[in-house]
Amino acid sequence: MNLNSATGELLVELGNQQVSTDPGELYRVSMDNLRYSRLPAARIFPDNEESVAKVIQLANKHRIAVTARGAGSATTGAATPVAGGWVLDFSGWKQLHIDPIARMAYAQPGVVLGDLDAAAGRHALTYPPDPGSKAYATVAGTIATNAGGMRGAKYGVTRDYVVALEGFLPTGEFVRWGGNLKKFSSGYNLRDLWIGSEGTLGIITGAILKLIPKPDAQATCLALFETDKAALECAQQILLDGQTPSAMEFLDAQTVECTFKFWETREPGLINSLPDCLRRRMGGQPVPSVLLVEVDGRSNEVKEQLAALVDCIGKSSRDLVSAIDKETVEILWKLRRSCSQAMFQLGNRKLNEDVVVPFESQLALMEFVAELKQETGLPTPTFGHAADGNFHVHIMYDDNDPRQTRKASEAIDKLMAKVVDLGGAISGEHGIGLAKAPFVGYQFSEPEIAAMRSIKKTLDPNNVLNPDKLWHPCEPWGFPRENVRMPWDH
Amino acid sequence: MNLNSATGELLVELGNQQVSTDPGELYRVSMDNLRYSRLPAARIFPDNEESVAKVIQLANKHRIAVTARGAGSATTGAATPVAGGWVLDFSGWKQLHIDPIARMAYAQPGVVLGDLDAAAGRHALTYPPDPGSKAYATVAGTIATNAGGMRGAKYGVTRDYVVALEGFLPTGEFVRWGGNLKKFSSGYNLRDLWIGSEGTLGIITGAILKLIPKPDAQATCLALFETDKAALECAQQILLDGQTPSAMEFLDAQTVECTFKFWETREPGLINSLPDCLRRRMGGQPVPSVLLVEVDGRSNEVKEQLAALVDCIGKSSRDLVSAIDKETVEILWKLRRSCSQAMFQLGNRKLNEDVVVPFESQLALMEFVAELKQETGLPTPTFGHAADGNFHVHIMYDDNDPRQTRKASEAIDKLMAKVVDLGGAISGEHGIGLAKAPFVGYQFSEPEIAAMRSIKKTLDPNNVLNPDKLWHPCEPWGFPRENVRMPWDH
Repeated sequence: MNLNSATGELLVELGNQQVSTDPGELYRVSMDNLRYSRLPAARIFPDNEESVAKVIQLANKHRIAVTARGAGSATTGAATPVAGGWVLDFSGWKQLHIDPIARMAYAQPGVVLGDLDAAAGRHALTYPPDPGSKAYATVAGTIATNAGGMRGAKYGVTRDYVVALEGFLPTGEFVRWGGNLKKFSSGYNLRDLWIGSEGTLGIITGAILKLIPKPDAQATCLALFETDKAALECAQQILLDGQTPSAMEFLDAQTVECTFKFWETREPGLINSLPDCLRRRMGGQPVPSVLLVEVDGRSNEVKEQLAALVDCIGKSSRDLVSAIDKETVEILWKLRRSCSQAMFQLGNRKLNEDVVVPFESQLALMEFVAELKQETGLPTPTFGHAADGNFHVHIMYDDNDPRQTRKASEAIDKLMAKVVDLGGAISGEHGIGLAKAPFVGYQFSEPEIAAMRSIKKTLDPNNVLNPDKLWHPCEPWGFPRENVRMPWDH
Repeated sequence: MNLNSATGELLVELGNQQVSTDPGELYRVSMDNLRYSRLPAARIFPDNEESVAKVIQLANKHRIAVTARGAGSATTGAATPVAGGWVLDFSGWKQLHIDPIARMAYAQPGVVLGDLDAAAGRHALTYPPDPGSKAYATVAGTIATNAGGMRGAKYGVTRDYVVALEGFLPTGEFVRWGGNLKKFSSGYNLRDLWIGSEGTLGIITGAILKLIPKPDAQATCLALFETDKAALECAQQILLDGQTPSAMEFLDAQTVECTFKFWETREPGLINSLPDCLRRRMGGQPVPSVLLVEVDGRSNEVKEQLAALVDCIGKSSRDLVSAIDKETVEILWKLRRSCSQAMFQLGNRKLNEDVVVPFESQLALMEFVAELKQETGLPTPTFGHAADGNFHVHIMYDDNDPRQTRKASEAIDKLMAKVVDLGGAISGEHGIGLAKAPFVGYQFSEPEIAAMRSIKKTLDPNNVLNPDKLWHPCEPWGFPRENVRMPWDH
């Protein structure tokens, strides 16, 4: 039976309230934030678990690819229905319940992280994982990619907060991995196998998530350094002093420079509100490298921690400004919040990586990135989570220029090889999807890949769940980027 | 080829420095703390990774069972070589390195948890997992069982501290799952699949573990209640008040009563050092139920927390004593440290369970345990981690009495069914091994078990690694308990 008649059968089974073949709707779910579009044959808004089961059973019967989807804010093509088939859209599954005694949240897959954290906040609790896409990204999407964020330094990543999952095996049976239990040592742990498997080993229809007491207060310190090296050495000293910042963001001088230019041309009104030390740097002094360090906890603890932090950072930074009141703190974070967008001053196309290296190799990584810049002549603005070794290295280029495109692709290839050579990983928090699949063979040995693929094969014998992810490379520089406005675009 | 000639080939390959067939040595590794003995054909002390690879390759060639082993302090028979074959003994693999900047430990499988924590402590760090067997249990054994402990309330369990694992697939290939990285979102997570899989999916030869800053101070509060219910309701109130104790141990009145008797007959000298409120209860007043609550953190925080705790507990407890100095704290913990041994006053045989239920079902579980006691006439002393829902329910009986033995086995069966009915799990922190395998079908549905077993089958096609665990039940009441003195016996 071909795809068209299978989709016909799907329509008969679920009805057109749940199944759409409208071209506009299909286009909308044909890509994620990688903006690589592949049209599916149907977009399915399942009413309930029975509909999900039905979809997977039909998919197995007719060998149709099924790609589950939340907000589509993944950056790697993980949510792109690259093999066509059907998209299971969970963006409407938004039920959420907070249990303040057990400190757990019961969330449907489409609950947005920001909403989850706000709901937890009403019980003086918080859900720590905070990817940049927090205002859009969904519970199941962030579980499927094991999303991280800035607070990972102190609070860990999504995996650390998933208590239990329920949903469907690739062959269509309903399963539960764990319960609302604080401990569990019974049987194989398929919960954690699902986490980070990018929708290839199961469909998540419900999650129980761990919440923690919300810190009473935060404080932030912005510090300027003359070199990237000085900034990273300071980051190391902070940890060596026994401090545990809730965020420690590093911005290299390239990133700071393009953000200064972005402000000058696009947000000149902002400049007056900036602290003096930043304004001076915009006025011709050398562009600094930056550390933004946040501490949190109880109010009195935070004051103590901030004092220790200022003391430590002051020994090596050129300029330093700290704040504990929300308004000033927000100004200090402007640099970080603007920098991602600002990079498009340097090229119309961005190869956005999220490599992670051992903490002691952060400097070596940045030295290598500087070499890449020199070698390719392309800008390589980089920022990262400097308590995690997790760096967002960007290669900016003009995708109308084939020479730049080739150089960019070669640079990424070299970067990935170097990262693995340093003992790192090709993805710290975005996942593999399509965009990093070319480099999986750098990361893992043949027996490791064989073991992973044997698990996919035994759990998904008909290869229906999000096929062609992780193992089948596409080249992110090899296709035109769809020119669409997404909800998170500024 | 039969087992004898395969073992002969093993001896030729590795030599008798690494392979022993001495009957005394074989007996020592024929059991764990379940004390169910099945003799292997060889005890292997591998010199290095190559030897481990060789053993697994030979095992696959000749279809010989291989059971990895650390201290043998597992309580479930997980380390018993029930299918005979060969025991891979890692108790000599004790290399350990602490990285205080990354806050990670590099540990060989045989490192004892207590030694690991002490080494971390020299850098003002700590390794939080603290099973009762901490002074003996090894890194790999506690990873294989996802061991918990008393501090799980605040600090989580072993799984939360495993950063990366390396070792061998069941088919003999060397693999690494993760590195010394604080984030990782690349490929399927076989690290967490290995954790808790009780040596059936891989052999761990190295682990990278997460360490955290060591709390400066602890304080403990011992509170006496007139009923088990009142104690558990107080535990609930403590969490509802937003407090996060580092331990919250509940001891039911049966447990307290047998500990009092144990002290009177075996340690009368101790009684004078006990706090007044406990001594009064030993002198004829009704036996209380007990909560032991510990808080930790920075010194000034601990004082604040203790004050809040005393305020909260004081509202419902009958007697209350708290301490912040180490010596008095140690006295308050005596009750908890003596109770496990004290239970043998109530029967010569103990069925020791570690069930876990949702936090809100703790009371319902204890009511059911009281019913079991009534119904069977057997003592059911129970203590547990009352912030976790993780309860050690014990059935004490005389194993020379077939009627009591039958009643005990029926009681465990009913208990397990009830736990699952309450949304709980048959093991919170010990694992399945042999002793809980009869109840796996209560915990998991057929598709869940099929998915787990398909993973075992695809990764271990010759079924060599610790076969007959998790899925092939033995009956812990159905064999004589070996009468041996183990290192942790008092």
